[in-house]
Amino acid sequence: MKELLYGVAYYREYMPYERLDQDIQMMKDAGINLVRIAESTWSTHEPQNGVFEFSHVDRVLDAMHEAGIKVIVGTPTYAIPTWMVKEHPDVLAVTPKGPGRYGARQIMDITNPTYLFYAERIIRKLIGHVQNHPAIIGYQVDNETKHYQTAGSNVQFMFVKYMKDKFGTLERLNQEFGLDYWSNRINSWEDFPSVVGTINGSLGAEFGRFQRKLVSDFLTWQASIVNEYKQPGQFVTHNFDFEWRGFSFGVQPDVDHFAASASLDIAGVDIYHPSQDGLTGTEISFGGDVTRALKGTNYFVLETQAQAFPNWTPYPGQLRLQAFSHLASGANMVSYWHWHSIHNSAETYWKGLLSHDFESNPVYEEAKTIGRDFNRLSRHLVNLQKLNRVAMLVSNEALTAMEWFPLPGRQVNYNDIVRLMYDELYKMNIGCDIVHPDSDMFENYELILVPALYAASDGLLERLNTFVRNGGHVVYTFKSGFANEHVKVRTTLQPGAIDEACGIRYNMFVEPKSVSFKGDPFEVGPEDNTVKTWMELLTPTTAEVLASYDHPHWGAYAAITKNRYGKGTATYIGCLPSSAVMSKVLKITVKDAGLWGEDQDIQYPLIVKSGINGQGKTIRYYFNYSDRTETLKYPHAEGKELLSGQAVKQGEVKELTGWGIAIIEEA
Amino acid sequence: MKELLYGVAYYREYMPYERLDQDIQMMKDAGINLVRIAESTWSTHEPQNGVFEFSHVDRVLDAMHEAGIKVIVGTPTYAIPTWMVKEHPDVLAVTPKGPGRYGARQIMDITNPTYLFYAERIIRKLIGHVQNHPAIIGYQVDNETKHYQTAGSNVQFMFVKYMKDKFGTLERLNQEFGLDYWSNRINSWEDFPSVVGTINGSLGAEFGRFQRKLVSDFLTWQASIVNEYKQPGQFVTHNFDFEWRGFSFGVQPDVDHFAASASLDIAGVDIYHPSQDGLTGTEISFGGDVTRALKGTNYFVLETQAQAFPNWTPYPGQLRLQAFSHLASGANMVSYWHWHSIHNSAETYWKGLLSHDFESNPVYEEAKTIGRDFNRLSRHLVNLQKLNRVAMLVSNEALTAMEWFPLPGRQVNYNDIVRLMYDELYKMNIGCDIVHPDSDMFENYELILVPALYAASDGLLERLNTFVRNGGHVVYTFKSGFANEHVKVRTTLQPGAIDEACGIRYNMFVEPKSVSFKGDPFEVGPEDNTVKTWMELLTPTTAEVLASYDHPHWGAYAAITKNRYGKGTATYIGCLPSSAVMSKVLKITVKDAGLWGEDQDIQYPLIVKSGINGQGKTIRYYFNYSDRTETLKYPHAEGKELLSGQAVKQGEVKELTGWGIAIIEEA
Amino acid sequence: MKELLYGVAYYREYMPYERLDQDIQMMKDAGINLVRIAESTWSTHEPQNGVFEFSHVDRVLDAMHEAGIKVIVGTPTYAIPTWMVKEHPDVLAVTPKGPGRYGARQIMDITNPTYLFYAERIIRKLIGHVQNHPAIIGYQVDNETKHYQTAGSNVQFMFVKYMKDKFGTLERLNQEFGLDYWSNRINSWEDFPSVVGTINGSLGAEFGRFQRKLVSDFLTWQASIVNEYKQPGQFVTHNFDFEWRGFSFGVQPDVDHFAASASLDIAGVDIYHPSQDGLTGTEISFGGDVTRALKGTNYFVLETQAQAFPNWTPYPGQLRLQAFSHLASGANMVSYWHWHSIHNSAETYWKGLLSHDFESNPVYEEAKTIGRDFNRLSRHLVNLQKLNRVAMLVSNEALTAMEWFPLPGRQVNYNDIVRLMYDELYKMNIGCDIVHPDSDMFENYELILVPALYAASDGLLERLNTFVRNGGHVVYTFKSGFANEHVKVRTTLQPGAIDEACGIRYNMFVEPKSVSFKGDPFEVGPEDNTVKTWMELLTPTTAEVLASYDHPHWGAYAAITKNRYGKGTATYIGCLPSSAVMSKVLKITVKDAGLWGEDQDIQYPLIVKSGINGQGKTIRYYFNYSDRTETLKYPHAEGKELLSGQAVKQGEVKELTGWGIAIIEEA
Repeated sequence: MKELLYGVAYYREYMPYERLDQDIQMMKDAGINLVRIAESTWSTHEPQNGVFEFSHVDRVLDAMHEAGIKVIVGTPTYAIPTWMVKEHPDVLAVTPKGPGRYGARQIMDITNPTYLFYAERIIRKLIGHVQNHPAIIGYQVDNETKHYQTAGSNVQFMFVKYMKDKFGTLERLNQEFGLDYWSNRINSWEDFPSVVGTINGSLGAEFGRFQRKLVSDFLTWQASIVNEYKQPGQFVTHNFDFEWRGFSFGVQPDVDHFAASASLDIAGVDIYHPSQDGLTGTEISFGGDVTRALKGTNYFVLETQAQAFPNWTPYPGQLRLQAFSHLASGANMVSYWHWHSIHNSAETYWKGLLSHDFESNPVYEEAKTIGRDFNRLSRHLVNLQKLNRVAMLVSNEALTAMEWFPLPGRQVNYNDIVRLMYDELYKMNIGCDIVHPDSDMFENYELILVPALYAASDGLLERLNTFVRNGGHVVYTFKSGFANEHVKVRTTLQPGAIDEACGIRYNMFVEPKSVSFKGDPFEVGPEDNTVKTWMELLTPTTAEVLASYDHPHWGAYAAITKNRYGKGTATYIGCLPSSAVMSKVLKITVKDAGLWGEDQDIQYPLIVKSGINGQGKTIRYYFNYSDRTETLKYPHAEGKELLSGQAVKQGEVKELTGWGIAIIEEA
Repeated sequence: MKELLYGVAYYREYMPYERLDQDIQMMKDAGINLVRIAESTWSTHEPQNGVFEFSHVDRVLDAMHEAGIKVIVGTPTYAIPTWMVKEHPDVLAVTPKGPGRYGARQIMDITNPTYLFYAERIIRKLIGHVQNHPAIIGYQVDNETKHYQTAGSNVQFMFVKYMKDKFGTLERLNQEFGLDYWSNRINSWEDFPSVVGTINGSLGAEFGRFQRKLVSDFLTWQASIVNEYKQPGQFVTHNFDFEWRGFSFGVQPDVDHFAASASLDIAGVDIYHPSQDGLTGTEISFGGDVTRALKGTNYFVLETQAQAFPNWTPYPGQLRLQAFSHLASGANMVSYWHWHSIHNSAETYWKGLLSHDFESNPVYEEAKTIGRDFNRLSRHLVNLQKLNRVAMLVSNEALTAMEWFPLPGRQVNYNDIVRLMYDELYKMNIGCDIVHPDSDMFENYELILVPALYAASDGLLERLNTFVRNGGHVVYTFKSGFANEHVKVRTTLQPGAIDEACGIRYNMFVEPKSVSFKGDPFEVGPEDNTVKTWMELLTPTTAEVLASYDHPHWGAYAAITKNRYGKGTATYIGCLPSSAVMSKVLKITVKDAGLWGEDQDIQYPLIVKSGINGQGKTIRYYFNYSDRTETLKYPHAEGKELLSGQAVKQGEVKELTGWGIAIIEEA
Repeated sequence: MKELLYGVAYYREYMPYERLDQDIQMMKDAGINLVRIAESTWSTHEPQNGVFEFSHVDRVLDAMHEAGIKVIVGTPTYAIPTWMVKEHPDVLAVTPKGPGRYGARQIMDITNPTYLFYAERIIRKLIGHVQNHPAIIGYQVDNETKHYQTAGSNVQFMFVKYMKDKFGTLERLNQEFGLDYWSNRINSWEDFPSVVGTINGSLGAEFGRFQRKLVSDFLTWQASIVNEYKQPGQFVTHNFDFEWRGFSFGVQPDVDHFAASASLDIAGVDIYHPSQDGLTGTEISFGGDVTRALKGTNYFVLETQAQAFPNWTPYPGQLRLQAFSHLASGANMVSYWHWHSIHNSAETYWKGLLSHDFESNPVYEEAKTIGRDFNRLSRHLVNLQKLNRVAMLVSNEALTAMEWFPLPGRQVNYNDIVRLMYDELYKMNIGCDIVHPDSDMFENYELILVPALYAASDGLLERLNTFVRNGGHVVYTFKSGFANEHVKVRTTLQPGAIDEACGIRYNMFVEPKSVSFKGDPFEVGPEDNTVKTWMELLTPTTAEVLASYDHPHWGAYAAITKNRYGKGTATYIGCLPSSAVMSKVLKITVKDAGLWGEDQDIQYPLIVKSGINGQGKTIRYYFNYSDRTETLKYPHAEGKELLSGQAVKQGEVKELTGWGIAIIEEA
């Protein structure tokens, strides 16, 4: 990228009256230099089967180009027209809940040939029509693609073939998945039952993996079509999203982001997060770290909130703080969903930069200052290179396996454990990369955090052992190593092969009731010194005990251990601790790994993010994620605060107002 | 009516053994002068297709007539016989949950021609058979009719034709409903998708309106048939009901009561309400006010509770209090559902005046005193004319629209806001009429309360502005004026056209967290001075600020405003306040409207209701809705307390025992 | 039985690798002398339609026999193979939720002829194949059989014929079930509607009775087949289970245990219960008392927990306590489900004696001591004869009827009331038998407890009256006698015919809000002196009032009464009391019945159980169901503590450590 992109999703199709020129003028006033269009309105582009109507697209492209605003055109395939469903009802995905119903988006079977035929045609027609327009800088294929639980007979048919290819013989499948249990054994491929009703977690998790593969295949297929039209300098991206808990919470269960992004030029994402008093920046950081990992470089925030919901209307200053936080994680684009608030249908209360009245408003006014600063500082802030020495290993397989074998009470799932680790690292101002089970980059890091790696191959466990042996540091949580890649529990002593690096063993685990760590070893006080949900009764072989359980019957067992192994250390957290305890354990390991530096003396709500810009200079962002003024002592070499233009000396005490920002470029 | 009717629903069909004569004797002892029969037992009247058996009806009619008890005969169409469903399974309504199952009542498709054929036949046979019986004073068509969510392909077929008629062109429909959104655009009438899966609130709300029309059409059709048989002096009524929250709570979502009652001679209703410590009289008052509005005059309480559920068994005195409360709202009939408790099936624990043992019991004994007093005082109490100067505007359209666009948390819906306003007015002893959006009677009132008028036409908002301009007073709550009659959010500054009368504007709204009114302006104390669920950030243009928000970031905005406009005032409540604050705001407006009188010095639990009787005399009911003795100072001209026959002087202090009643006829 | 059986369920089919010899060695080390095999793996025994493969069964039988371990072979019919469902999808039960899906066990229609054909064939093939093997001591038919809600058209077809047979005429059916209500009347057998949607509780409850009959018929049919193969000395049993609330809670709603066990030689059961701090022994005692009643003698605990779930991992000592508690209730077998923890599928976290690693562990080590003691003391402890003088009357009919007519709030159902009574008796150390409505053994007892006998025939009520008249004592709770055997509420004064023995009447009942017993008559303190959920307003005719209500309006009514009637007493509890009050009422009655003895001075957590062994000697078990050491004064004649071999004198003070046991054989 040559410059920062500040954008909005723009839907001329949704406008209650003609106002393109006024909108563009207001965009220009706000420094908007990018719009994303066309991805939601297939029924407008192709009002009847085979009848195409792109004049409204042309009009927007021309007007944007004239105004100097760049455009990303999306393929409109994630929301299908009424005529298609009336003519071919079987394009709707059959899910475990039964046949689909028209209405919402993302309801089709992404493997259905009829759907694929029409999807290919509209892509070729639309992208072929616009490909040479000078306003266009790239394309987005589909939007927030998932498999929509498609599980009809055709999907089952493909799945059985996939299983044949993968396992070769039923003997192997029966053995590895334990299908003799409850008479589930399959003795002939013809007998393969629909997986929809299965109670076998190995089979269920494999189907989940297959469904994620459908997503990757679909996006690869779309990208390959768009690539036929893509002009030099144009890119193909996609808008990924996360496990949704009313906001972008964690690893997306239904998509393998790493596999699905292979065919893209640039990774894109949407990141939505709590606001007002709930704004912490964590989701911006986590979402950014995941997305940056996909192509190993800068990425697009294709969607994030402007005003959105009543509980997300930003306080003054928050919109700015959010925008620069995205940049600080390596984003080259911050684009709002969406420009204007919609007057009908499902997202009427998901407000855009403009409210339903199209008038200026306090949030729009704040956006103007962002646009101005993005434009002014683009050269300093674009293409930030991140150099992190800590990584977190996340795994779709572990996530899915833990859906099949949930923790007691089902209140804490895989992503809760991911976030428990991630959030404490974030508050500690330690930059973090994300790696996946097939990554060959473990050796780039000093420290790897491994939350609940419940399903993992022997090979992966061995690679983690090797990483430690060679001097790396690992922090595992409970459940790691327990089952293999087919979600078959290991028949060895637990925790699988990592017992070697961890220096522990266990074969009992219980549900804690009023259990704490003996003697409050991390000095966190009685409220935080508790164990919840899960505890493994660890016996150290060579490990040092960091904490043991305070319990009349389980008091002899260790709870958290650390083991020197080769040149490194492996820490094992055998239970669900409080955030405070997690923080203390991570702090110990960060120090062991030699990563505790000056930025770690700065504490949340002050957040530090850094990187190297295109001129090779270090950029450090300081964010105040609170309503109160906070002070910090700048610990690094002399530099310039870019927003104010003022010089900053080492040791100088800076004040950051509530939700305030400083960006210091080292001289 | 010539006299008060005191009645019961009577089901000889349900009796475990023959006891008609005993029942009639016990009815006579209790002053029962009306029974309602026949509406639930089609399978008894027509045991096989085309075989009719009315001898049990004849026997009851004859016996009642001999005893001087009047009879209402109901058409038995709301519960269909087993043979019909076996022979024609398609008479069951197909709903969004799928095909229906036989068992409960109210499960048929009220548009199905097979059902309609059989329904018409049984109506003609039954009513034709009994029409000349001297016991009969009138007929009830069907019972608690609703559309039962009928949404099968035939209903969809009719709906599309209705949409063609209403909107003419798809262009207009697409535009007004915003169907381009998520590719929902309909470009050919053939493409019109089943509305069952829609995510478009405009479409969903229109289908709701269409379904309510089916109810009105059905009742009109039934009434037209019965009218062919109706003899001079006989009437046609229907038993309407309310949004059910375990009792009659608010506006009925599935029926447009005003439209549906057009074809009736007299409006009827069932009113069920909390009892024991939960008895307040509010539902009796609200239900009565709604039903009185339907034909603009006295009405029937065709069903209300005798003993009912274990938590409704009335305390001594409550049955009397309830009965006279109905009269005080303008009822000419109080009829219990039902005479005897049923020994099998779904309503076994919904007890009647008699328990399962048919013996006397304390509640039946209390009913005897009511029957005696009704008979004795009928001339004074029948045909009470109510003359209210305050009205509340309720809207099915607003209700449905808010179902599609609920408040955050979905805990507070349209009827909660209706009741928040209504209940405070009730406790203030201000009589209230109910008006609907098409009413031409606004000018009859000094004050109109407008809860959450979320969906409203420009015309309605203009009529409300005019009402204020001409000297009326209005209190609006938040959300009023936001969307038009098609649930399309207005593109103007909010709150739509009423901004003119209200003298405010806003384009931001947030969800309150720990927000109160600055400085407790209504002096309600910290607990009641809070804002919940919803707050609009109001900016007054000409309005006076009654309350503003206490919040670090939203403190500059107004919360509640009052504006002089023309000769009247418009008060706007931009947030969900406590009952205490609502009461204070209403009090201000009631005083502005010059309606604060002597009865307002009497406070709940003492309730005053008044009207003019057939002799042109003012009747005033005083009710004590509490377990304790209460005193009041009678402020009006000399009169007579009708129950005791004692004279009452102005200024005299009266004592009302717990759940006690006084009825004073002004001399 | 000649000896105590200490067993495990063993699934060689589930083993991740060959380890039969190691398993058997570990079993021998733990004193395991029984395994149960083959009941879950039809798809392994018959991998394809008509292809049989029993070599794995033979191998286990041979190896067990060589090791001296006895074997129970189960028929594998409760979990069906994939090929069957693919070939004949209609074997899956159609339930009220719709057609079934393959995956789980217990999903078939147990009346489907295709299923029955295959089931019969696999039974004949398997049992025919193994019948002469010397390792086999008996057979288990099916497993935890229930009707799985089967309700498809074929079941409905059979049900209508059953109804014809039972009621003869529709007139009688309509009358008894009150089908005129809501037009449900059936006037021709062809019109009989599917019962799936019924709202008639009489019809619904009758269908429940019919479904329970299907279970009895199915088990009788299986037993008759296996009996053809059964060799002298071999038995047929079945593994019954209980209402499941995460553990074995109460009477099984879907099976009539008494009818279903008629065809068996020995009654078997699974009993699962809370553990750790939640272990009380109540479920062991209750489950044992029910199962002992089925054949009137000793029984098998075919399944109980070894380690099971994380919250059930036993504390040290608990496994022993549990094992001997089963014996103390009359079990001749304690068998764990299961030997090893399973590595895949639904019950991976339902751990066996061995964990997934097959290594020894603390629980297995404790099992070794149990096996040793069972073997050593078998002669003293086997075939314990119980002689109880108190019985509890439980009724499937009452249970089902109360599902149709639940208590307000639906939080307390029939089994809660069963357990409220049972648990207090258990804590009082009063041994209890279980009797059913058709029992002819009432006269064997001094005292019968009757929880919520909501549906009961006149005959049953009369027999209970006779029991009292003849000198017996009965304690009834509320709801008893209210409806007849067809769930038709009685038309007499309540509580039906038992009013005679109880000396009370009522026809009003209410839901208590802040109600207590006047004057705390049982001296239980304010917290326990409360009335919850239900209260009947009792008027004594001849009864003595034990407690009346403290309430401003219901204070005149009695709550708990006792009546002398003939030579006995009938106590009636007209409301839901606390456990403390229930205990006090039972104590009064136990004393009245002359059953308060020396063991009643010993209080829970100390539990006493006794019986007569094969040598005619009294065996007394003393259990400490707590974590703390407890002391007791041995009140009986001199004896020997069998575990330690020490003599025990009358009056001697014994110490029982936490979760400790003493077994004293009287000299």
